[in-house]
Amino acid sequence: MTNSKNLRIVLVETSHPGNIGSVARAMKTMGLEKLVLVNPKKFPDPQAMAMAGNATDVLANAEIFSSLQLAIASCIDVYAASARERTIAWPTYDARIAAEQIHTQIHQKKEIAIVFGREDRGLTNDELQLANYQIIIPANPDYPVLNLAMSVQIIAYELFFQSAVDVDNDWQDFPELNADQLQQLIDHFIKTSYALQLFDEENAKKIQVRIMRMFRRLKPDTMEGNFLRGFLTRVNKKIK
Amino acid sequence: MTNSKNLRIVLVETSHPGNIGSVARAMKTMGLEKLVLVNPKKFPDPQAMAMAGNATDVLANAEIFSSLQLAIASCIDVYAASARERTIAWPTYDARIAAEQIHTQIHQKKEIAIVFGREDRGLTNDELQLANYQIIIPANPDYPVLNLAMSVQIIAYELFFQSAVDVDNDWQDFPELNADQLQQLIDHFIKTSYALQLFDEENAKKIQVRIMRMFRRLKPDTMEGNFLRGFLTRVNKKIK
Repeated sequence: MTNSKNLRIVLVETSHPGNIGSVARAMKTMGLEKLVLVNPKKFPDPQAMAMAGNATDVLANAEIFSSLQLAIASCIDVYAASARERTIAWPTYDARIAAEQIHTQIHQKKEIAIVFGREDRGLTNDELQLANYQIIIPANPDYPVLNLAMSVQIIAYELFFQSAVDVDNDWQDFPELNADQLQQLIDHFIKTSYALQLFDEENAKKIQVRIMRMFRRLKPDTMEGNFLRGFLTRVNKKIK
Repeated sequence: MTNSKNLRIVLVETSHPGNIGSVARAMKTMGLEKLVLVNPKKFPDPQAMAMAGNATDVLANAEIFSSLQLAIASCIDVYAASARERTIAWPTYDARIAAEQIHTQIHQKKEIAIVFGREDRGLTNDELQLANYQIIIPANPDYPVLNLAMSVQIIAYELFFQSAVDVDNDWQDFPELNADQLQQLIDHFIKTSYALQLFDEENAKKIQVRIMRMFRRLKPDTMEGNFLRGFLTRVNKKIK
């Protein structure tokens, strides 16, 4: 089975506690155990317990955070489940390919988050932009409306399916930056780009989103991260 | 999409009409439309409608039979979804292999049924024995308790996946740099790093190799490439 301690399922601002229970059950049927909630509307709640079946342990161990950023801070890779296309598209995998990749990463003992949005509105652009990748569940284009627990069930099933397969992709010799360290690098780069007057006012926001996407796609390791931070520090000295 | 007219989802003696509604929704999200009910306890029912979301057409077109035998009479192949092992084991496929096979059969215009049992007790031996094959959904051996709609969702998803393998993976909005352009970017970055005195003599070569690997992994698109080249040009002006 997937080593599920390194894999967290993150639910953002879930409205109905029953859905949290259904998600817990869906997770446990596929051997997942780490549930993280960002600002749930009502939790704990008897309805969550009622829908969880025999997965009340998943609920009891759920962690609650006040922001998505905090919920994923220690994660190396963040996947956002979202059916919507965005103006600036994020690197996107279908559930199967994503599961293959996540399975490999967990094998490498990396901390991974899969993030699910609100029942009605999913994830905002700002939230998606904290992710390295978007996951899409292939579905009927005329009615692709899976509910929250169904989406978790399918992705958890894909992960469970992968656990039979064995992989060794171990070319990496330094650990990757976690989400927090990567954010600091991105902030440093954007600040420096401002100082170099690379943004015209009109497009500044759009280009910053592209820069975020580029760095989250790159996922620098700590050695690369240190080099890039050193590079930016020197550049800033030259500017002053 | 799977030609779903030749594929029927058969529910045997479902107790809770809400589950029939959830199944209808799960089916429609994956492009299935033909629902067949064998002796449902309560149907039609407002709870079924409430859970069906936008899949009320699936409910409206559902056919009702008084026995499983009648419900599957015209089918060439019958698959029974069941987690239980039987004393006399049936030819068994996991959901993925079954979906591949069913997909091929539907392509050949064969009528196929997938049968799901009661919420609490599943299918009897007699019912299973009306099937040609048993389908198993791989799940946590300690808690393999998927509810009815979740089981339908996963099998329907597997079927949809078979028919929709060309998921649009096209998140990239600019072409990638070609090898030559990428080399120029790398050279520019390394030259700039030298100018910033970031290399100590001992490790210069090693670090350059790492930088190359990093950029080749990133594979910037032309928009990103232009931004990075602009960035480096400004930095070099500051250095002079």
